[in-house]
Amino acid sequence: MSVDDNSRVYGVAPVLEILKAGRRSVEQITIAEGANSPRMRELLELARENGIIVSRVPRSAMAKFVAPGANHQGIVATISAAKYIDDYQLLESLSHKIGTDDSPLAVVLDGVEDPRNLGAIARTVECAGAHGIFLPERRAVGLTDAVAKTAAGALEHVPVAKVTNLTRLLEDMKRRNIWTVGTSLKAKMDYTEWDWRQPSAIVLGSEGKGLHRLVEETCDILVKIPILGKIESLNVSVAAGVILYEARRQRNNGEL
Amino acid sequence: MSVDDNSRVYGVAPVLEILKAGRRSVEQITIAEGANSPRMRELLELARENGIIVSRVPRSAMAKFVAPGANHQGIVATISAAKYIDDYQLLESLSHKIGTDDSPLAVVLDGVEDPRNLGAIARTVECAGAHGIFLPERRAVGLTDAVAKTAAGALEHVPVAKVTNLTRLLEDMKRRNIWTVGTSLKAKMDYTEWDWRQPSAIVLGSEGKGLHRLVEETCDILVKIPILGKIESLNVSVAAGVILYEARRQRNNGEL
Repeated sequence: MSVDDNSRVYGVAPVLEILKAGRRSVEQITIAEGANSPRMRELLELARENGIIVSRVPRSAMAKFVAPGANHQGIVATISAAKYIDDYQLLESLSHKIGTDDSPLAVVLDGVEDPRNLGAIARTVECAGAHGIFLPERRAVGLTDAVAKTAAGALEHVPVAKVTNLTRLLEDMKRRNIWTVGTSLKAKMDYTEWDWRQPSAIVLGSEGKGLHRLVEETCDILVKIPILGKIESLNVSVAAGVILYEARRQRNNGEL
Repeated sequence: MSVDDNSRVYGVAPVLEILKAGRRSVEQITIAEGANSPRMRELLELARENGIIVSRVPRSAMAKFVAPGANHQGIVATISAAKYIDDYQLLESLSHKIGTDDSPLAVVLDGVEDPRNLGAIARTVECAGAHGIFLPERRAVGLTDAVAKTAAGALEHVPVAKVTNLTRLLEDMKRRNIWTVGTSLKAKMDYTEWDWRQPSAIVLGSEGKGLHRLVEETCDILVKIPILGKIESLNVSVAAGVILYEARRQRNNGEL
C-alpha cells in the first residue's frame, strides 16, 4: 500500500482495502474521469454506503491531488490524520458533566471548509478547556493532515465527532438539557449577555456563509459578536476563540 | 514593467525603477546566486539603504518565487498589497484619542511571520474597533497579497505602520501615556485583570517563539491568556481576538 506524507492512499486495490477494513476513516476520494472497472464500481458503492465524498476530476487535473511521481492509477483517497470519537459517546460524556464544576461546553461547526480554521479551533477548544467538537459529515473539512498540523497537537486531546445531521444533533442536545447557542450577525443578544456557565454548545457557521437556515432555526438562542468596524465578520477561528474565552471568563469569575 | 497577480516585480530594471520611485513599498527582494552587474550592485545598495530584506537563492530554486513563465532575469521583488502609514502619524493619532470616549487601543506584533495570521489580526482589529497595528521592519511578514486576501478588506481601513525598532516604539508609547501590555505565558496577571479601558497597546509575540527578551522587558506589564489544556499556546490571531474583544467588553460595560 502506498501512503505518502499527506496521508493519501493511491490505486484501486489499496483504497478498496482501506474502505473494507473500516478502521481508518477515509475523508474523501478523488477519481480521474474515465476510470472505470468492476472493482472501481465496488469501491464507489462502498464509498456511497459510508457517506464519503467522491469527486471526479479530469485526468490532467489529478496532479493537483497526488504527490509527484505517485502511481495513482486514477484514484486517490485522503485519510484522517486523527481518530474520530463516536457522536453518541461524545454526547454522553457531555451529559455526564451536567451539574459538575465543569459544565459541558462544546463546539458545533456548520460547514467550516478551511483546514487551518478547523485546526486553530481544535487548539482553542483544548486551551480553553472545552469538551469537544462536532462536524457534519458532508460539505466540511475533516481531520486532514493540514488540520492536524495547524492544531499543533490538540487533536490528540480534543474529542471530535462527525454527525450525519446537524439539526438532529441539536435536537439531541436540547433533550439532554444542553443549550444550543448559534452565532449570527442577525442576533439581538451579544455573546457576553449569554450565561455561559450553563451547559452550552456554540454553533458556528462556515466562512462567509454563516449558519444554514435550518440549523439557525433549530438553535435555542442566537448571539452575535459586535462588529464595530466597516467590514462584515471575523475569521471563524477568531470568533470561536472570543466566545470560548468569554465562557471561560464567566466560569472562572462566577458571574457574567 | 511586469507585475503579476501576486504583486511581484521581475528583472533588474523594473525593480530598480520601483526602488528609486519609492512610492510603493518593496517587501523583499529575492536574487538568484551568481546574478551580478553594476546595476544589480546599485540596486542592492538602494535596498540596503531602505532596510529591505534581500535573499540569495540557488538559480534552480527561483521557480518557487516567480510565476510560471515569468522572465525574471534572476531577480524578483514582492511589493506591498496595501499602503503603510507613517509610524509617527499613527502614534499621534493614538495620542489624540487619550481622554476621549474612544481611548487608544493598538496592536504591536513582535515578529509574526504567517501572512494568514497577520491578515486575520487586521480583520479583528477592524471588527473590534481598535486603532492600528505596528510591525517591525525586519523578520516579520509585511502587507503582502496573502495578508490582504485573509484580511478580507480590513487593510483598507486599519492603519498599519512599520517601525525599525520595537523597543524604541514601546518607549515612545510610554512617554505618550499609552500602557504597553505584553502577552507572555510567564505572566502572573490574567488578561481579564488588566483594565483595558486605559490607553493600551497589546504586544504579541511570534508564533511559537513569543516576545523577544528586550521587548518583553520593555513592556509596562505582562498578561497571559490562561491555558487549561495540555498544549502550550493559542494561535496568535486567536490570542489577539480574545484580548481585543475583552478590551471591547470592558469598554462597553464600563467595568472589568
